Amino acid sequence: MPSEFDLIRRYFTRPTRHADLAVGDDAALFRVASGMQLAVTTDTLAAGTHFLHGTPPHDLGWKTLAVNLSDLAAMGATPRWATLALTLPAVDEGWLAAFAEGFFDCAGRYGVELVGGDTTRGPLAMTVTLFGEVPEGQAITRSGGRAGDDLWISGWPGMAALGLMVLQNRVQLADASQALAALHRPTPRVEAGETLRGIAHAMLDVSDGLAGDLAHLCECSRLGVTLDVGALPLAPLIAAGADETLARRTLLVGGDDYELLFSAPPQACGALAALAQKLGLPFTRIGQFTEEAGSILVADGPEGSPYPLDVCGYDHFALPD
Amino acid sequence: MPSEFDLIRRYFTRPTRHADLAVGDDAALFRVASGMQLAVTTDTLAAGTHFLHGTPPHDLGWKTLAVNLSDLAAMGATPRWATLALTLPAVDEGWLAAFAEGFFDCAGRYGVELVGGDTTRGPLAMTVTLFGEVPEGQAITRSGGRAGDDLWISGWPGMAALGLMVLQNRVQLADASQALAALHRPTPRVEAGETLRGIAHAMLDVSDGLAGDLAHLCECSRLGVTLDVGALPLAPLIAAGADETLARRTLLVGGDDYELLFSAPPQACGALAALAQKLGLPFTRIGQFTEEAGSILVADGPEGSPYPLDVCGYDHFALPD
Repeated sequence: MPSEFDLIRRYFTRPTRHADLAVGDDAALFRVASGMQLAVTTDTLAAGTHFLHGTPPHDLGWKTLAVNLSDLAAMGATPRWATLALTLPAVDEGWLAAFAEGFFDCAGRYGVELVGGDTTRGPLAMTVTLFGEVPEGQAITRSGGRAGDDLWISGWPGMAALGLMVLQNRVQLADASQALAALHRPTPRVEAGETLRGIAHAMLDVSDGLAGDLAHLCECSRLGVTLDVGALPLAPLIAAGADETLARRTLLVGGDDYELLFSAPPQACGALAALAQKLGLPFTRIGQFTEEAGSILVADGPEGSPYPLDVCGYDHFALPD
Repeated sequence: MPSEFDLIRRYFTRPTRHADLAVGDDAALFRVASGMQLAVTTDTLAAGTHFLHGTPPHDLGWKTLAVNLSDLAAMGATPRWATLALTLPAVDEGWLAAFAEGFFDCAGRYGVELVGGDTTRGPLAMTVTLFGEVPEGQAITRSGGRAGDDLWISGWPGMAALGLMVLQNRVQLADASQALAALHRPTPRVEAGETLRGIAHAMLDVSDGLAGDLAHLCECSRLGVTLDVGALPLAPLIAAGADETLARRTLLVGGDDYELLFSAPPQACGALAALAQKLGLPFTRIGQFTEEAGSILVADGPEGSPYPLDVCGYDHFALPD
């Protein structure tokens, strides 16, 4: 195995413009701009748990940074610096070169500089810690929701879960390219997150399935929600080849979405429509925050009373084994 | 497996005083004091690579933070915040409770607050990313050495490697407690690192063996070194039960030391002696930086000419298989 120092030099040392000291010393040094808070998140991807063995390394390099970018986006923060701790079973230089290329493609796209890291021998896994800046007091937390807020979801939730089912031969699609791209190269909603500062009251990124993450948002904001099932953005999933039952399941419990779930006051509706158009990213209104902390109700449309989500049940929505 | 959220709540949520937002949202938020640079380092410990299977979890919790503290100490930075990404093959709550206790023992001792993390299923490994503050322009890098500087090493290098050999039944000691403690619960030289600001010109922490890390320091400072073999602090190793050959080997190539190797001008000798006494930590002068970049010579004492380190050779010093 070439030494850690050789690997770092060869694949992970790129010029930085916003760090005082980057890869190569005991620690990196950088300065946080005046009036800014530092926002920090960390996420591990482990082989067999978060990705299938044999996933293309270029995609893995992209995704390991993208999932962290999604967390910062959900705070409304601007990403700046990252560290990468990489655990490798052996050195495959072709693999490493492609992984680094995917990582730096994503880093370059979102203005992130790699300032430090660690290379270790062991079962394949990668941990990114990502640092961003957000103007003091303007971060969008999970706890800022207010009763009466509309609940919105960005983009195409469920698409990545559909891609995973294609890979697992559990579903066949005429054209799986969009679903596979969503799984392998998720697009973190960085610009959307930044632009939602001052508009969104509460926000998180959906990575564990919309239904579960919705429950987290309610819990943190000490509110309930009425979910408008008829408004869920099933159309893109159906257009991709899923039937309606499958579309609803992948959307509600699929996971790996990296979409933004946020609340905003009803009067922000027009601003959000304009913003969605500018970003080329749909925002779909899927429900409303209510005063009843912990109550998650489902509304099927204007007729009939809302009923608790546990009537339709997580199991009902669970992906088929 | 209890959910990630349950685990985090139960074992890794402690009150913080210096963070605006800690564990529980998409990202942590904190502020860096005015006039300070942020110093950031990350290190992974993986089972089978960095520690033996069956290592007591309390020790692992301590060590996973301590090895990162050692990196910040080597910059002269004051540690403040940490994130922890923990990969577990299964949930053993007794193990987790002991691991968390060890982690927070170390965190409390050095004033570190845990502000975020990730829990993942997979082969046992832990990645800490640690953040510290250092007054702007005062960090001690690897590249600041000057020809004529004395080279110093803190503490008891070689002691941890001796402990590893005890565990591997490759050496027997009458009393192995000091060697095992050095291996399992290394003491990061945080106070020493901070106090060396304004005194040391170049510094790194010795984790891969003194000889190799000395070569890194020379390379970064573009200098050479004359190593005074007679001055190496062998006595503590011999007192612990090693013979002279073994003591020299563990000291020069043993690894896992987490001692500070630094350079300082000769006139700092008195200040360093006073500092060592105050800290209760020996500093041993082991050589001198020279103008000859990349040249590592060994001096055996006042008689005879220094000879290249490659004459005695790394292999000569290698630990027996």
